[in-house]
Amino acid sequence: MASQAKRVLVVAGLGNGSGTGAATARLFAKQGYSVALIARGDSLTNIAQEINGSGGQATPFPVVSYSNDDLSKAWTAIHAKFPKPEYTVRVALFNAAGFVWKPFLEITPEDVQNSLQNNVAAAFTFARGAIQAFKENDIEEPSGKKGTLLFTGATASIRGNVLTSAFAAGKFGVRALSQSLAKEFGKENIHVAHSIIDGGILMNLQREMQSAEWIANENVRLNPESIAASYLYLVNQDRSAWTWELDLRPAHEKW
Amino acid sequence: MASQAKRVLVVAGLGNGSGTGAATARLFAKQGYSVALIARGDSLTNIAQEINGSGGQATPFPVVSYSNDDLSKAWTAIHAKFPKPEYTVRVALFNAAGFVWKPFLEITPEDVQNSLQNNVAAAFTFARGAIQAFKENDIEEPSGKKGTLLFTGATASIRGNVLTSAFAAGKFGVRALSQSLAKEFGKENIHVAHSIIDGGILMNLQREMQSAEWIANENVRLNPESIAASYLYLVNQDRSAWTWELDLRPAHEKW
Amino acid sequence: MASQAKRVLVVAGLGNGSGTGAATARLFAKQGYSVALIARGDSLTNIAQEINGSGGQATPFPVVSYSNDDLSKAWTAIHAKFPKPEYTVRVALFNAAGFVWKPFLEITPEDVQNSLQNNVAAAFTFARGAIQAFKENDIEEPSGKKGTLLFTGATASIRGNVLTSAFAAGKFGVRALSQSLAKEFGKENIHVAHSIIDGGILMNLQREMQSAEWIANENVRLNPESIAASYLYLVNQDRSAWTWELDLRPAHEKW
Amino acid sequence: MASQAKRVLVVAGLGNGSGTGAATARLFAKQGYSVALIARGDSLTNIAQEINGSGGQATPFPVVSYSNDDLSKAWTAIHAKFPKPEYTVRVALFNAAGFVWKPFLEITPEDVQNSLQNNVAAAFTFARGAIQAFKENDIEEPSGKKGTLLFTGATASIRGNVLTSAFAAGKFGVRALSQSLAKEFGKENIHVAHSIIDGGILMNLQREMQSAEWIANENVRLNPESIAASYLYLVNQDRSAWTWELDLRPAHEKW
Repeated sequence: MASQAKRVLVVAGLGNGSGTGAATARLFAKQGYSVALIARGDSLTNIAQEINGSGGQATPFPVVSYSNDDLSKAWTAIHAKFPKPEYTVRVALFNAAGFVWKPFLEITPEDVQNSLQNNVAAAFTFARGAIQAFKENDIEEPSGKKGTLLFTGATASIRGNVLTSAFAAGKFGVRALSQSLAKEFGKENIHVAHSIIDGGILMNLQREMQSAEWIANENVRLNPESIAASYLYLVNQDRSAWTWELDLRPAHEKW
Repeated sequence: MASQAKRVLVVAGLGNGSGTGAATARLFAKQGYSVALIARGDSLTNIAQEINGSGGQATPFPVVSYSNDDLSKAWTAIHAKFPKPEYTVRVALFNAAGFVWKPFLEITPEDVQNSLQNNVAAAFTFARGAIQAFKENDIEEPSGKKGTLLFTGATASIRGNVLTSAFAAGKFGVRALSQSLAKEFGKENIHVAHSIIDGGILMNLQREMQSAEWIANENVRLNPESIAASYLYLVNQDRSAWTWELDLRPAHEKW
Repeated sequence: MASQAKRVLVVAGLGNGSGTGAATARLFAKQGYSVALIARGDSLTNIAQEINGSGGQATPFPVVSYSNDDLSKAWTAIHAKFPKPEYTVRVALFNAAGFVWKPFLEITPEDVQNSLQNNVAAAFTFARGAIQAFKENDIEEPSGKKGTLLFTGATASIRGNVLTSAFAAGKFGVRALSQSLAKEFGKENIHVAHSIIDGGILMNLQREMQSAEWIANENVRLNPESIAASYLYLVNQDRSAWTWELDLRPAHEKW
Repeated sequence: MASQAKRVLVVAGLGNGSGTGAATARLFAKQGYSVALIARGDSLTNIAQEINGSGGQATPFPVVSYSNDDLSKAWTAIHAKFPKPEYTVRVALFNAAGFVWKPFLEITPEDVQNSLQNNVAAAFTFARGAIQAFKENDIEEPSGKKGTLLFTGATASIRGNVLTSAFAAGKFGVRALSQSLAKEFGKENIHVAHSIIDGGILMNLQREMQSAEWIANENVRLNPESIAASYLYLVNQDRSAWTWELDLRPAHEKW
């Protein structure tokens, strides 16, 4: 349905700009999407500037927190910035994560709240904005989609373990949400997918902390760009063959 | 090791006294446990009275909410009521659940908060109290356990679905917690187990709402007493062969 | 339905009499079951003699192989030995396993055939005999069952791994069978269950091969008697709350 | 490592040429692969002719059965036809399936043997040929792979059900094999992946049997071409982010 509207990708969770969220923003910008970037922290402007400086279109929507209020306001601002019919929000990636890595008895009630808020509750608010936006869309051809909602998961999305009780509780919750949404909105041609990132991702932090050998060896850690490429593939799947969940890990990962 | 201490079962989540939590309390009371009952609502006193009237020992610990503060206070009160060495908390059942059953776009931020609070955050606080209590225990013989922590799960613990996004997010989270704890504390001889209740349970509400045929037919719904019997079996498993997870469903259930 | 018929347990797979199959036979014999023992090898007569010498009733049904012909003949012999209405076959345990533990490129076509035959095909033939026998039964009260069919699984039933491709292929297949049967025959009040034995079992072989420390430490290996106790529990579950699958592992197992 | 060798795709299981195997052969032929086609039946020559007539390169390797002997001979013939250094076998797809759909008590021992032979044992033999071929390869850049081995799975790969006991036993077994191989050979830069096709595929048979509405509605059935596109994506994943398993289903599928 050769719509003239410019496609918009919304990403929540970009860290310092060296990970999955930013790599996805860059890749989709190159594919002609306008990208709306939601994150806490100072890096957001830099990422947007970098994309804009490379011929892409990116707009930062900074949030103080991933609370329902702040994320809802970000969605409102996104809709104001990207009105129909000039724009159409087609892809949304929830890439935020509230990480906790502690023995159970050291986990505080605040840790639990943070994990639940920044993983699960934030995912609900973000998904609400995305689903509402997609429902307003026409079905694109030939993909047969109103939109694609992506969630970045982790090993902890499918396996609880020593040290990960709070983190896994949040990531399991996001996975439940994504599966529920996939089933509820598939019949409206809204595609919901969930990735299991089962290994370490090479980000700025890893560049500082890990050995030179690890950094250099693509067999043992994930490139954010490779994850982004998988997200593009999911977005381009046509209506006859949608993936809800795929795992991604480096070639030499032990699992 | 033939401790003279009286065993205590702590149950959180007893609804109106006609479900799994109350059936477990009654069964363990008959087995000689003192039972400490944590719940919101008025039924708590009645359940305790009923058990006490049948030759058992039950004490109500009412809470206004399943917040961290309220549950922590309940644990403090339980320890005051059941001091060592006369008593030893050996079994804890987290049976509370914050139920939500709605299309995704009707789920409010409050619904999400309630599901996360009453399912996941409450489970963390309850588990903290249980694990801390168990760590003070000696290893009982012949079972080889310091204690058993049980979680009641549901179909929504392992499968997201239309109408269950908020509920499943909470129940997945509890399952993650229980698996993490099982792995972290097994090596300290603390047994953590999780059930998947995959069918309708016959409770007072069902007695009012369901057909006489459904109520009468044990092939199609679960007896709370049968679930309680499974919990007793799990508690009695010896250290060489512990179950983390089992499913329970009626004979004729379609799954 | 206080049937006067003597209950029969049929077990296939008893190794040298020191493992799960034999422990289950002993336990059920003590519970008043006549036990029919199917196995290859010489130990069968000894196990039967031992049970008979301890006040139980056991009959060996030796097979040359777990082929369809040999197992079918064993079932025919069992029915001849335990005719209705004096006897009723109520429990059947498929405990045989064709073990292969090799790097993939060393696995021969014969290894594959053996794993598929001794795990999967044998399970089909054994299950056919059991289901046909159960269908002739009345529903026992209060359990609400015509019979219980148990399968012994392993870690390799749910996880493929280096060195286990052939073994896991067989064990996954048995698990598929058990789940299919549970769904197909639950509505006829035939209970099918599957265990995941996730750790090393203390058998004669282990007594010879493992360290004295491992043998003595019930926290690190399974007692066959404890697995048998779980099977008895499953058999005694009433119709309102049946388990299809449970895992069993020692307290200190890393998983 | 700009190898000049022509890449070869080997596909086993092409049915009548209207399904996943043939669609994959066509797509990879367009990508410049020589395709080696293994199948029973008469369609093989037609598929090869069609691909050759469209500017691709395809060679039929007919087999009488999926026995170890016949499949091993096919691999020998493939190596003779595609010698190094002119050719390099880079991708292998096991798409064969022995389908059985019957109530358990109607399943014959032959049905079981057929399912195990045509699903599992054939997958072992096919995988042996593929892994041996890949091990001889250099690591391609930039993908970082010696080769990719793909398996087509089904809903029955992860869920047993009424009517599918024999089929699921076979498909579970193939999934176990694929996971074991992924773990064993990932560290040698051989990528093994498994798809879960969770819906009906539009093939010639479906064109004859299904309603015109079903055939026309891409929301309710899978295009073989869309599955093939997913296989191409998996083959192109670079070493830092490999998928072992993904599910594929139509947008409106209930699951």
